[in-house]
Amino acid sequence: MITHLRAVHFEEVDVAGVVFFARFFGYAHDAMERFFDDLEGGYVALVNKRSIGFPAVHASADYKSPIRYGDVVRITGDVTRLGTTAAHFSFVMTRVRDAVHVATMMHVHVCTDIRAMAKLAFPPDVRAALERHLVPSPPASAPLADA
Amino acid sequence: MITHLRAVHFEEVDVAGVVFFARFFGYAHDAMERFFDDLEGGYVALVNKRSIGFPAVHASADYKSPIRYGDVVRITGDVTRLGTTAAHFSFVMTRVRDAVHVATMMHVHVCTDIRAMAKLAFPPDVRAALERHLVPSPPASAPLADA
Amino acid sequence: MITHLRAVHFEEVDVAGVVFFARFFGYAHDAMERFFDDLEGGYVALVNKRSIGFPAVHASADYKSPIRYGDVVRITGDVTRLGTTAAHFSFVMTRVRDAVHVATMMHVHVCTDIRAMAKLAFPPDVRAALERHLVPSPPASAPLADA
Amino acid sequence: MITHLRAVHFEEVDVAGVVFFARFFGYAHDAMERFFDDLEGGYVALVNKRSIGFPAVHASADYKSPIRYGDVVRITGDVTRLGTTAAHFSFVMTRVRDAVHVATMMHVHVCTDIRAMAKLAFPPDVRAALERHLVPSPPASAPLADA
Repeated sequence: MITHLRAVHFEEVDVAGVVFFARFFGYAHDAMERFFDDLEGGYVALVNKRSIGFPAVHASADYKSPIRYGDVVRITGDVTRLGTTAAHFSFVMTRVRDAVHVATMMHVHVCTDIRAMAKLAFPPDVRAALERHLVPSPPASAPLADA
Repeated sequence: MITHLRAVHFEEVDVAGVVFFARFFGYAHDAMERFFDDLEGGYVALVNKRSIGFPAVHASADYKSPIRYGDVVRITGDVTRLGTTAAHFSFVMTRVRDAVHVATMMHVHVCTDIRAMAKLAFPPDVRAALERHLVPSPPASAPLADA
Repeated sequence: MITHLRAVHFEEVDVAGVVFFARFFGYAHDAMERFFDDLEGGYVALVNKRSIGFPAVHASADYKSPIRYGDVVRITGDVTRLGTTAAHFSFVMTRVRDAVHVATMMHVHVCTDIRAMAKLAFPPDVRAALERHLVPSPPASAPLADA
Repeated sequence: MITHLRAVHFEEVDVAGVVFFARFFGYAHDAMERFFDDLEGGYVALVNKRSIGFPAVHASADYKSPIRYGDVVRITGDVTRLGTTAAHFSFVMTRVRDAVHVATMMHVHVCTDIRAMAKLAFPPDVRAALERHLVPSPPASAPLADA
């Protein structure tokens, strides 16, 4: 599990005075970079030196509580599924000052050669970095304990 | 069904040179405003004069094809479900120059008094505006033809 | 002189409810693209096909009146100086509904090969496009009438 | 003098792959908040509890070197002039990894009651906070040493 703190910036609110819903995905993307912190140079080096990126093929958010300028959110993230080229990430955002649940998000990103914009099997070190944060999903049809 | 055109701005791409995935939600939000065009003053007057807004409680996107600076997307939108305070919207984005499918999105927004940040039943004129774009959903458990 | 209209988007305000001051530069950049509309494919083709861009070396704004969601600004722009590689642009923003003066801006952009990020003398067609919008500046040290 | 560090986010670049010039003003605005760190609750409390904000009336930037994803900039800031309602701020950005000069910026902000959007004389504690960072400007017409 990774943890990432993010303060709301002055210009990230909308007309209602709360953080614009689309920005939550940027916050989660910042948090996603933490999964790669154990690699040399982190996500930055993956992108800049190896031209490996992770475009989203799916993203969803359930919004529980609005946040405002002055709030800091704690984002925790897990890898919930890891395929050959795709990874599923779940994120939970809570407000630091009162632990209120802000949002739960789910992203699916695909390992990509961003020069060619072509899918790429996870290189072994990248896969290993993600496996460290992989949590077992509850099986879709778990057998009954006594069955 | 509403239709909205949106050109990609110079600064809306990310390091991979494609529109950052979080921005699609802002594009869809722009399109959402079209549902209210028949109301006097449109969405702007709803927000600025009546303090009615529609914060998202859910948003999801399935990304099919990246878009870049110079692309224009056509966004079509439907209301797929309409409750007392919540509306479900679906959006389909296609690239204008070649009709490539860019993304499909689903948002759930809640009618809200944005001064009090409290839920509000849709006022009749707002509900009527949305009903004009309501499409029937396939029933979740349709009876078999011969049952 | 070019003219460009721009509506304020829902998420472009800040905590004070007015368009965040940094965004004005993005608005002016959108307007800048109009100077190249007479070239085939416009600014988009310059960037995407010829890899020519215009990074800013200077930008300044004087803010006269705040703008809010629902406002539309009219941006007029002139080329005030044209060197071998650099162009000076001035922009005046007014609010469409009441002609209030919103801001005056001055940008200096340098013609650049954006793959190499190296200065480039304006190609003849680009220079011609800009010359069409060039206004004479008052001379810095105009000779006295009787001198 | 205040100091502020800021990492370039993945989505803050433009088509040329460098941080979009308008974003520098947001970076400097983040740094500006540091001038108020000695006040209880900092800039956030000024805005959220006392409804005091500092809209810009002028902003300018001289760009010296582009920055990219992965770069971190150090922003140092001074108050260069302090009037009854207006403050002049200067900012210098350098890239942390190699101390390259990235940009120099100058902002003029006006103390404002952001509910009424009306000018406000600096409250004494706000003025004191800014005075701590006030540097003497070179006099416009300094007398010659030997004159």
